[in-house]
Amino acid sequence: MNLEPHPDRLFPSDPTTRDIARKLYSLVKDEPIISPHGHVPPQWIAEDTPFTDPTSLLITPDHYVNRMLHSHGVQLSELGVGQTEFTEEQSRNAFRILCANWWLYRGTPVKYWMENELYDYFGVRVRPSAETADEIYDQIADCLQRPEYRPRALYKRFNLAFLATTDDPCDTLEHHEAIREDESFDGVVVPTFRPDKYLEPGREGWAELMGNLSEASGIDTTTWAGFNAAMENRRAYFKAAGAISTDHSHRDPGTARLSDADAERLYKDALAGKISSDDADALRRSMMYEQVRMASEDGLVMTLHPGVYRNHHTPSFTKYGADVGCDIPLKTEFTDALQPALADFGDSENLHLIPFTMDETVYSRELAPMAGFYKSVFIGVPWWFIDAPEAMARFRGSITETAGFTRTSGFIDDTRAYCSIPARHDVSRRVDSGYVAKLVAEHRLEMDEAAEAIKELVVGNPRRAFKLDGVI
Amino acid sequence: MNLEPHPDRLFPSDPTTRDIARKLYSLVKDEPIISPHGHVPPQWIAEDTPFTDPTSLLITPDHYVNRMLHSHGVQLSELGVGQTEFTEEQSRNAFRILCANWWLYRGTPVKYWMENELYDYFGVRVRPSAETADEIYDQIADCLQRPEYRPRALYKRFNLAFLATTDDPCDTLEHHEAIREDESFDGVVVPTFRPDKYLEPGREGWAELMGNLSEASGIDTTTWAGFNAAMENRRAYFKAAGAISTDHSHRDPGTARLSDADAERLYKDALAGKISSDDADALRRSMMYEQVRMASEDGLVMTLHPGVYRNHHTPSFTKYGADVGCDIPLKTEFTDALQPALADFGDSENLHLIPFTMDETVYSRELAPMAGFYKSVFIGVPWWFIDAPEAMARFRGSITETAGFTRTSGFIDDTRAYCSIPARHDVSRRVDSGYVAKLVAEHRLEMDEAAEAIKELVVGNPRRAFKLDGVI
Amino acid sequence: MNLEPHPDRLFPSDPTTRDIARKLYSLVKDEPIISPHGHVPPQWIAEDTPFTDPTSLLITPDHYVNRMLHSHGVQLSELGVGQTEFTEEQSRNAFRILCANWWLYRGTPVKYWMENELYDYFGVRVRPSAETADEIYDQIADCLQRPEYRPRALYKRFNLAFLATTDDPCDTLEHHEAIREDESFDGVVVPTFRPDKYLEPGREGWAELMGNLSEASGIDTTTWAGFNAAMENRRAYFKAAGAISTDHSHRDPGTARLSDADAERLYKDALAGKISSDDADALRRSMMYEQVRMASEDGLVMTLHPGVYRNHHTPSFTKYGADVGCDIPLKTEFTDALQPALADFGDSENLHLIPFTMDETVYSRELAPMAGFYKSVFIGVPWWFIDAPEAMARFRGSITETAGFTRTSGFIDDTRAYCSIPARHDVSRRVDSGYVAKLVAEHRLEMDEAAEAIKELVVGNPRRAFKLDGVI
Repeated sequence: MNLEPHPDRLFPSDPTTRDIARKLYSLVKDEPIISPHGHVPPQWIAEDTPFTDPTSLLITPDHYVNRMLHSHGVQLSELGVGQTEFTEEQSRNAFRILCANWWLYRGTPVKYWMENELYDYFGVRVRPSAETADEIYDQIADCLQRPEYRPRALYKRFNLAFLATTDDPCDTLEHHEAIREDESFDGVVVPTFRPDKYLEPGREGWAELMGNLSEASGIDTTTWAGFNAAMENRRAYFKAAGAISTDHSHRDPGTARLSDADAERLYKDALAGKISSDDADALRRSMMYEQVRMASEDGLVMTLHPGVYRNHHTPSFTKYGADVGCDIPLKTEFTDALQPALADFGDSENLHLIPFTMDETVYSRELAPMAGFYKSVFIGVPWWFIDAPEAMARFRGSITETAGFTRTSGFIDDTRAYCSIPARHDVSRRVDSGYVAKLVAEHRLEMDEAAEAIKELVVGNPRRAFKLDGVI
Repeated sequence: MNLEPHPDRLFPSDPTTRDIARKLYSLVKDEPIISPHGHVPPQWIAEDTPFTDPTSLLITPDHYVNRMLHSHGVQLSELGVGQTEFTEEQSRNAFRILCANWWLYRGTPVKYWMENELYDYFGVRVRPSAETADEIYDQIADCLQRPEYRPRALYKRFNLAFLATTDDPCDTLEHHEAIREDESFDGVVVPTFRPDKYLEPGREGWAELMGNLSEASGIDTTTWAGFNAAMENRRAYFKAAGAISTDHSHRDPGTARLSDADAERLYKDALAGKISSDDADALRRSMMYEQVRMASEDGLVMTLHPGVYRNHHTPSFTKYGADVGCDIPLKTEFTDALQPALADFGDSENLHLIPFTMDETVYSRELAPMAGFYKSVFIGVPWWFIDAPEAMARFRGSITETAGFTRTSGFIDDTRAYCSIPARHDVSRRVDSGYVAKLVAEHRLEMDEAAEAIKELVVGNPRRAFKLDGVI
Repeated sequence: MNLEPHPDRLFPSDPTTRDIARKLYSLVKDEPIISPHGHVPPQWIAEDTPFTDPTSLLITPDHYVNRMLHSHGVQLSELGVGQTEFTEEQSRNAFRILCANWWLYRGTPVKYWMENELYDYFGVRVRPSAETADEIYDQIADCLQRPEYRPRALYKRFNLAFLATTDDPCDTLEHHEAIREDESFDGVVVPTFRPDKYLEPGREGWAELMGNLSEASGIDTTTWAGFNAAMENRRAYFKAAGAISTDHSHRDPGTARLSDADAERLYKDALAGKISSDDADALRRSMMYEQVRMASEDGLVMTLHPGVYRNHHTPSFTKYGADVGCDIPLKTEFTDALQPALADFGDSENLHLIPFTMDETVYSRELAPMAGFYKSVFIGVPWWFIDAPEAMARFRGSITETAGFTRTSGFIDDTRAYCSIPARHDVSRRVDSGYVAKLVAEHRLEMDEAAEAIKELVVGNPRRAFKLDGVI
């Protein structure tokens, strides 16, 4: 079968609405891509390393791809998960498994993204299948030999304008420094401060991390005050290196503050490795409160990605490590959880707080009402499992009536799959065009208003929420 | 830009469905408005006081309007929140802020309501903007000088047939008495018994309220039995003054009954100001159980509006007071919460209980199943943040398949914004017409059935749920 | 009014999409019906007993029908609930009540199912109403005299290929044996192991059930180990009798395992009738963990139907017993609840676990992510209150983007209303055709892919999830 993405794909089928959607989409489709949160390794850009093979580029790092195959009985090891070097045979075999099972992805965005990137960037014109696996593999492998498929060239071809990575607070950010200092590359690639494991005092190995933090910051972390000072120090280091945001993903987004004395006591318990699970949660929530305070001071944007049961299938974690596709979302609560921090800093000039969720119930109930009152709160667009056309349309339908078009984050790809970035952003632009078109077709918006609204969604919002004026 | 609401606004865009929707809408668009729950001050009607200026009429009292501006950095004080008298300059300035930021309301019902009321009642023909602010302001200010813009004349122009206000249990209801006794006004305006703060024994100042209650009722309220007798007394007073319902808004809708001995003990603790937060919740839930019992006896309809974190942004509450736009919804549970009261009174001839929610998840899961079994339970239509076209359509889609067309409350505007009442009811009629039209277009309903269904939604349901036969 | 179901009913109204839906539906509309979970009494088939009258066939056993009438003030006794024999007058009167109130069912699937079965199987050509009640009653009563309306003949006319009943673990399964041994009937009717009440150690009369279990299995059930051995024994008995699955419906789907010592202690407490409510829940969750273990060994598919407040209206339960329409759903959680069992058995070759829910929020948040990773987890389609066109469409929209088309259960009618089975399955086929058609119309799927997808939904999924290859 031929592969040929339709120019009207993802637009509503009603002819009137589709026609309006087409016009709105044409206004934004060529806008440069702003990607303020993702997982591309900075080393790729710093060293402009050629990609080695189709599997380690397109399959192994992408848990969206792997998990579906796993649910049909494929072993993660067959796909190279947990492996860094591949023989030609291993890489080709994994690719054959993917293509032979391509039908499983029907109705999912993986199919959409992959077919678009194969078509647009690798010149593939046949649908993946057992029969076409080798042909497609060879075609991609051939491309990867060529200079225009190296990371920096792709950055340009992808029309990227801004790319943030995700980094450990103790990271030296050497790759980012290399990128900044290399005048031959004019893209913008910045780090993101991701302190999760430092804020989980019940976690195994946490006390050791405090040692690393002390070393990286040069600040004694044996006290609660020292811990916070070291955090401030590393945030400043990241900010100086170009970071615009911090990212946080805990089981819940709680921000309840402990008294200094209680915090000190629990912090000491944690260092001694004898903190209870409840106390560790309480201390973590107080640490999050402090992160909000710091953000209200240093102005780094906070993105919150809570509500996931990490490594739900323990044996897969034991064998392959984290991020292999067995994280499962949990119901999440924001109204109570964020109240302590918002009562104190919600009106702050510098604070931008962007909650993301996979619990769609909070969009109309909690996040839109918060973002419709607090100037510091922006609604994160659908993320991870719900970063897909219908879920995106539900999102707009859930939040726009309360928060309008200006209080959302802009599209976030949050991906490890570099080549899927343009297709992901394109999905968002198409779906948002369709949503706004519906409002015009139903005479809830005039066409001139719609044209401004779609530009706000694609350009205005990420610039506003992530404070990008002056950065790009 | 011109302002000209389209006659087909809010109808589905599919031509077949739209045509059916238009026909169904034509059957109900001119029906008199029944407004069984809202916040219009009775004094306005009693004294027929002229409105003074556009801002204190359209902006200051409407937290929907204020909160969006606040989220973009406007101070509530700039909009007159917390202020009762305005200089011409203050009023005009606030109005300019609103118009200059009109684009923020795109996609929200505030834009829809306001543009419709400006067009229909104030003759405005230009879209609000920085440029048109003064022109629109002058036009409205001019209208407000004229007798046809006084509250009673508007009541008639709005095609109102029934309007309930919201009143304190100790209120003398003197304005309602004045309205009833004034034969020159033939509208129906009745009070609603709203005992919330009397049922929150952990609240500051609660013991003092018990004093007021004793005074108003002439009943000793130093015992649990006395408290309930005093409540019964005031409910009777309201009923005699024309009230048809009581309204309740607590954090949760719990109705668990304490033994008399436990209730007495906690009641005494509360009077002594030493009740714990958990005990206060338990006592409140037992008080709510008693309210259900009373309703099953005196027949006043109960509307429940639970599940809101009031005054989430503490500093705004401290500065401006309640109801300024920083109440944030919470997830809510009804199945367990209402079970004790429904087990005892769910089959009662006199009880009508109408739960409202902003937690859309309960519609298909809890409220439709309850209203589809209990003759005493009706489903409240979308309220507050979700009182908007798409949320209303989701509501019908969520509850109709279980509860049909006859078990919902009828539209409730619940508004402080008097002039928005007709536009709000019109949105509901249009959206419901669109929903029913979809069923016809999909051959799930014949046209004659649909015609009866839309009349049920607009006329039959509020009359049935609020027991209005014989009242209007 | 005439009754004439439209050939395009339930298809989307957009002409392009409808045309595609029609084509997809034509590919599956005549597929034999697979019904792997329901409540048809096996005795009906074993004895091929003629149905006696329209009311006891169509009204009394169907709580969907009764509950709506009850919500409008009809007494359940008027409909024959709790009654097994009917005079002509009683039966006719109940039928008249139903027909006179037919308008109440507008928008609900009851109307849709009933009108379709009346039209297709009883030749009714007029819409139910007070005026047509007797005519329809007589027509059905006349049919029921004829051999082609006996249970086995209907099994054939309904195009059933597989029908599972629901049975007590101690049941002798004699009716199933009779069916199997009767060579004159070639349908497939199998039992389902439903151990709920045996797994509720806090339930009144539970200790007595343990006696029954001991007797049925011949195994001493006075120890925790004995209890589990007895369960294994009865599961094997059911499996030998053709059972393919076990069914479980508790308040929550928890599977947390107790240590053997703790389980033993609580089990003894329960036998002694002195287990606390919390301990009974803990023991039940450990029993469920064991059921998952057993399923991973004997390969019986597990269907979970948790999250219902049974007999919410206590007086109705007291008067009429269970299953009379006053069960109300509860919010439900699966991610935490299933983790212990999935961590240990999620990768097992033999385990198939199918969670059903009436809490729609878990579809995109919990069930689709789980089924998109675990090969043992399949997503149950909408059930009970949400087994209706719009809810079904929401379901596909919620889960397909994460789990694709291959990880759902296939349609489950779960019904006591035998004659509604074909109409129920037909609704599912129509709605799924409409959903897949939308993906084609929006260029998210090619037509050849859509044709395979709809066949997967109707045929492939129930065969895969319920392991029916080799059975039918």
